[in-house]
Amino acid sequence: VKSELAPPAQGFVPPNPDFRAFLERFFAEQGYLRLIGTVLARIEPGFVEYQVPYRADIGQQHGFFHGGVVGGIAEAVMGAAAATLVAQGSTVVGAEYKVNLLSPALGATLIGRGQVVKPGRRLIVCRADILVAGTDGTERLCAIAQGAMAVVAADG
Amino acid sequence: VKSELAPPAQGFVPPNPDFRAFLERFFAEQGYLRLIGTVLARIEPGFVEYQVPYRADIGQQHGFFHGGVVGGIAEAVMGAAAATLVAQGSTVVGAEYKVNLLSPALGATLIGRGQVVKPGRRLIVCRADILVAGTDGTERLCAIAQGAMAVVAADG
Amino acid sequence: VKSELAPPAQGFVPPNPDFRAFLERFFAEQGYLRLIGTVLARIEPGFVEYQVPYRADIGQQHGFFHGGVVGGIAEAVMGAAAATLVAQGSTVVGAEYKVNLLSPALGATLIGRGQVVKPGRRLIVCRADILVAGTDGTERLCAIAQGAMAVVAADG
Amino acid sequence: VKSELAPPAQGFVPPNPDFRAFLERFFAEQGYLRLIGTVLARIEPGFVEYQVPYRADIGQQHGFFHGGVVGGIAEAVMGAAAATLVAQGSTVVGAEYKVNLLSPALGATLIGRGQVVKPGRRLIVCRADILVAGTDGTERLCAIAQGAMAVVAADG
Repeated sequence: VKSELAPPAQGFVPPNPDFRAFLERFFAEQGYLRLIGTVLARIEPGFVEYQVPYRADIGQQHGFFHGGVVGGIAEAVMGAAAATLVAQGSTVVGAEYKVNLLSPALGATLIGRGQVVKPGRRLIVCRADILVAGTDGTERLCAIAQGAMAVVAADG
Repeated sequence: VKSELAPPAQGFVPPNPDFRAFLERFFAEQGYLRLIGTVLARIEPGFVEYQVPYRADIGQQHGFFHGGVVGGIAEAVMGAAAATLVAQGSTVVGAEYKVNLLSPALGATLIGRGQVVKPGRRLIVCRADILVAGTDGTERLCAIAQGAMAVVAADG
Repeated sequence: VKSELAPPAQGFVPPNPDFRAFLERFFAEQGYLRLIGTVLARIEPGFVEYQVPYRADIGQQHGFFHGGVVGGIAEAVMGAAAATLVAQGSTVVGAEYKVNLLSPALGATLIGRGQVVKPGRRLIVCRADILVAGTDGTERLCAIAQGAMAVVAADG
Repeated sequence: VKSELAPPAQGFVPPNPDFRAFLERFFAEQGYLRLIGTVLARIEPGFVEYQVPYRADIGQQHGFFHGGVVGGIAEAVMGAAAATLVAQGSTVVGAEYKVNLLSPALGATLIGRGQVVKPGRRLIVCRADILVAGTDGTERLCAIAQGAMAVVAADG
């Protein structure tokens, strides 16, 4: 089972020309992502990839990434993908999401790929694939997700 | 908006008479829950409550609990509620879950209450309420969740 | 396993004083609900119950209500519960929902109970219980659902 | 926004060599699908397409396909995709699913495409795209779904 999510073929045009810089700030402000060691690996219009190297303290008894981390990365990467497509002065907050865990998240690196499916004015609907990569670079799909992010006014 | 989830009225009878001790080990083995400072607050047949005191490193820019923590606690507390109802020699792993975020998780303590709705032989279906409590003890519902946990053989 | 959803204890006050008449029109305009024989059984602020008597043409091979009907009633009853709490001139459309099917929907009547959990300005988050009742009136929970309805301007 | 789901690239091999005949029977036994006028349009290993021509009695007030039909087709087409990959003597029943409605389902034909993502021994996890096609053949994505189907013994 391979990941099929990639930067969208439909060629979204971000309304904010500085969407990359916005996304880097958006990422940096989330202490939780830093706590679990998240790396911002890729930014495209409507697509973001995060990576999380394995550490024992984000695992569970058998050396897997904890389900809470897998789901948390799924939500975070969908929010980030949505955030690449909001206008200046707006941002996104998670409204709802759903995760199916497919197989134990056993590997050296957890990879989350979030993709915008439909950028609405109020809600941005996304899908995500979560994979684990071995030290040899092989990838295996371990969770899939779907959810909606709400567009809100950014403050400050 | 108040939480309505409480220990189930239907009076589930845990097949494992040592379900409390099992649940304490189940909780202790999850490094991720320790990382974010989770406290195991209550165990009943088909019902578990976790609490997480606020810390800046599990928050986001505005002093809220991060959505990844809210969702992670929702999944964890549904898994724990399910784990109170498995036979000796079995355990549970998350299969799938869905979270609706209702309002910003701003407060001193995040409280997750997981409740079994239907204890099946293979899948245990649960609901969860996630609340934030202020320093004055007032509670506010900030997320609701629903999901299925898979029953699997425990190893070791 | 019993249904636990009932008219909300929190006492929602409908902004539209004619919410019952509005709900009856809202129901009547949905040809699909008529096609499958739905009856509007109860309207309260933030709570609606639909009932569907069994017919072979909404079933599947073994005499159960079809999963598509169970899920469709779950979505419809959450939309209706949300519709009791919108202002005059507004209505609701389904944004997203999730259903867990708990046991075969075998019985004389399918009962859907939708309850508002959080009436937001843009999104109204709901839960639903779906039950089957036997000819003797006994009820059994056969599905649970959770979802968000979007508040939009009514036209006409 | 285009549909991206297609027969899986990973080349699933159905354990049942007669999977096409099995799928045709599986489809024929569901009275509900007939009631709403569903056509079985395509069967591939891990992929099924259903089509539903518009009729007023499966619509709602403004000439759209009803949300209950959209969600019902999403569930049905994921179940059918899963059913192409079960062994002889097994079948599938819906366990859970989640739907995001993206835009009003206004068009001449509703098209559901279900795809297996992960064929597990007990649960088969799927995604679906739901589109509407105009009389000129143009397609527009109007809903996406994700869910798990349970593998069970077929009787008879």
